[in-house]
Amino acid sequence: MQTTVIGLGKMGRALATALVERGHDTTVWNRTPGRSGDLAVTHAATAADAFAANELVILCLLDSESVVAVLDGVDVRDRTIVNLTTSTPAEAAKLSALVAERGGDYLDGGIMAIPSMIGTPAAVVLYSGSEQAFRRAEDVLAAFGDRRYLGAEPGLAALNDIAMLTGMYGMFGGFVHAAAMVRTEGVPVVEFTETLLIPWLRGLFPALVGMAAQIDSGDYTAKESDLSMQVANDGIAEVSRAQGVSTELSEPLFTLMRRRVEQGFGGDDFPSVIELLS
Amino acid sequence: MQTTVIGLGKMGRALATALVERGHDTTVWNRTPGRSGDLAVTHAATAADAFAANELVILCLLDSESVVAVLDGVDVRDRTIVNLTTSTPAEAAKLSALVAERGGDYLDGGIMAIPSMIGTPAAVVLYSGSEQAFRRAEDVLAAFGDRRYLGAEPGLAALNDIAMLTGMYGMFGGFVHAAAMVRTEGVPVVEFTETLLIPWLRGLFPALVGMAAQIDSGDYTAKESDLSMQVANDGIAEVSRAQGVSTELSEPLFTLMRRRVEQGFGGDDFPSVIELLS
Repeated sequence: MQTTVIGLGKMGRALATALVERGHDTTVWNRTPGRSGDLAVTHAATAADAFAANELVILCLLDSESVVAVLDGVDVRDRTIVNLTTSTPAEAAKLSALVAERGGDYLDGGIMAIPSMIGTPAAVVLYSGSEQAFRRAEDVLAAFGDRRYLGAEPGLAALNDIAMLTGMYGMFGGFVHAAAMVRTEGVPVVEFTETLLIPWLRGLFPALVGMAAQIDSGDYTAKESDLSMQVANDGIAEVSRAQGVSTELSEPLFTLMRRRVEQGFGGDDFPSVIELLS
Repeated sequence: MQTTVIGLGKMGRALATALVERGHDTTVWNRTPGRSGDLAVTHAATAADAFAANELVILCLLDSESVVAVLDGVDVRDRTIVNLTTSTPAEAAKLSALVAERGGDYLDGGIMAIPSMIGTPAAVVLYSGSEQAFRRAEDVLAAFGDRRYLGAEPGLAALNDIAMLTGMYGMFGGFVHAAAMVRTEGVPVVEFTETLLIPWLRGLFPALVGMAAQIDSGDYTAKESDLSMQVANDGIAEVSRAQGVSTELSEPLFTLMRRRVEQGFGGDDFPSVIELLS
C-alpha cells in the first residue's frame, strides 16, 4: 500500500525504514530536507505534494503544534491521517476534530518503543480515533510492530501511553533508589538487579492485577497487610538515612499512605491511596 | 532436624507450619500462649526452655527490640540462631555481635514473601551472616522456600530486603498514579494493567539491567533518549493536571532529573540521577 510519512526525525526515519523494508511504496517529506539518508523513498517537494501523493498519511513530528502547522497548508479531504506524534489526549481530540471538519479521517497513535525497536514485535503502538481509519491502515501499521486499537475516543491512545510512561518512571524511580541503597555496601547493582530485584518485581505482577481489581470495584478491604501495618514499619526511610541515601523518591508515597491512615482507612489495602490522587 | 521457632505471629505460624508439614520435629514458644492452633508442635514453657530444647533456633518477632529482649534471658552457647525478624542492617550487625559474644552463631534473614507464600517456591528468603550457620541450617530453611546466601556481613540480607521493598513501592506508586489517570476516562484498570502495563514493564526489565551496568561502571553516556530530552517533554505532569490527577508521586523524580540537567548532565542517560541520591 502506498504511504506518505511526514517527519524524518529519529522515530520518523525508523517508521519509513520499516515501511520500505516491508515493500511499501513510500513518499516522505521533512521540513528540513536531506534527512532520509539512502532510504529507497520518493521525496515530495512540499507537504501539500506529500499529502496529494497518497491516501494514507502518517505523521511523526516534534509536537502537536508542528502537526497543526503542517495540516494548515494541505488538503486532507479523503485522507486517512495517522498521527504518531507524542500528544496529550486534549491535543488528539483537537486534531481529530480539525481533520474531520476538513474532510479527512483521523487516527491517533502512541508509540511505546524507542526507534531501534520499530519493526520488531517488541514495539507496541496504541491507536484510538476513527476505527475505519485503523482498519484501512492496519496492514501498513503492522510494519511498525504490535498494535492495539483502544476505541473511538481520539485521546485514549495518548492517555494510555502517558499512563504507561507513568508506570515506567515509577519503576525506574524505585530501581534507582534501591540501587543507591545496595551500592553503599559495595553490592554490584547488576547482580542485585538480575538475581533479586527483577524476579521479585515479576513475582509481584499478579498482585498488581489484584490491586487493579480492588480499584475497579472500590472495595479495598485488606487481605494480608493493611495500610496501617505498612506505614508503621517504614524501614525504607530508616535504612536510607542510615546509609546516607536520600528519601526524596520514596517519601511522597509514604506521606500519601499516612494521610490515608489518618483519614481512617488504615484497614484498607494499599491501592486505597488512589482515592487521594483523583 | 529438630528446630525451635520463637514467635507465633502470622509469619511465625506460617514458618512453624512449613516445618511441621515437612516432618521437622518442632518446638515453639510465644510470649502470649495459645497461638499455635492445632499445629503438631511441642510447647516450651519459657523462652529459655525453647532455646535449651534444640540447637537450631529460628526467631520471627515484631521487631529487633523484641529479639534483644528474648535473647536477654536465654543461653545461646552452641546455638545456631536464625533471625527472620524484619531488621535494619545496623540491627542485624548488633545482634550478630551480641550472639557471637555469648557463644552462639548468628544468621540474619529477610523474608521476601507474605505468610501465605511460605513453603512455596515463590517465597524467597535472603540470608547473611555466619556461613557456617547457613550451611548447618540449610536443609531446614529449605522448608520455607527459595533461599539466597548473600555473604558474611550480617546486614546484607536486611539491606537487600529493604532495597527490594523500595523497588516494589516504586512500581506500586507508578501503578497507582497510572491507574488514577486511565480511570478518569472510564478505562477498566484491570484491563489496562493486564494487557498494557504489565507486558510493558516486563519488556523494560532488560533496560533495568542496562541501567544497573551504567551505575556499576559510572558511565552514563546516553544511548537513545538523554535526560534533557526526557525532562523537555513532561507529558505526565501536563496530562495528570488536565485529567485532575495529582502529580505528587511523579514530581520528585522529574525534579531530580531537572536538577541533574541543570548540573550539566543533560546528555546522560536516566540512571545518572543516582548521583544525586547518595
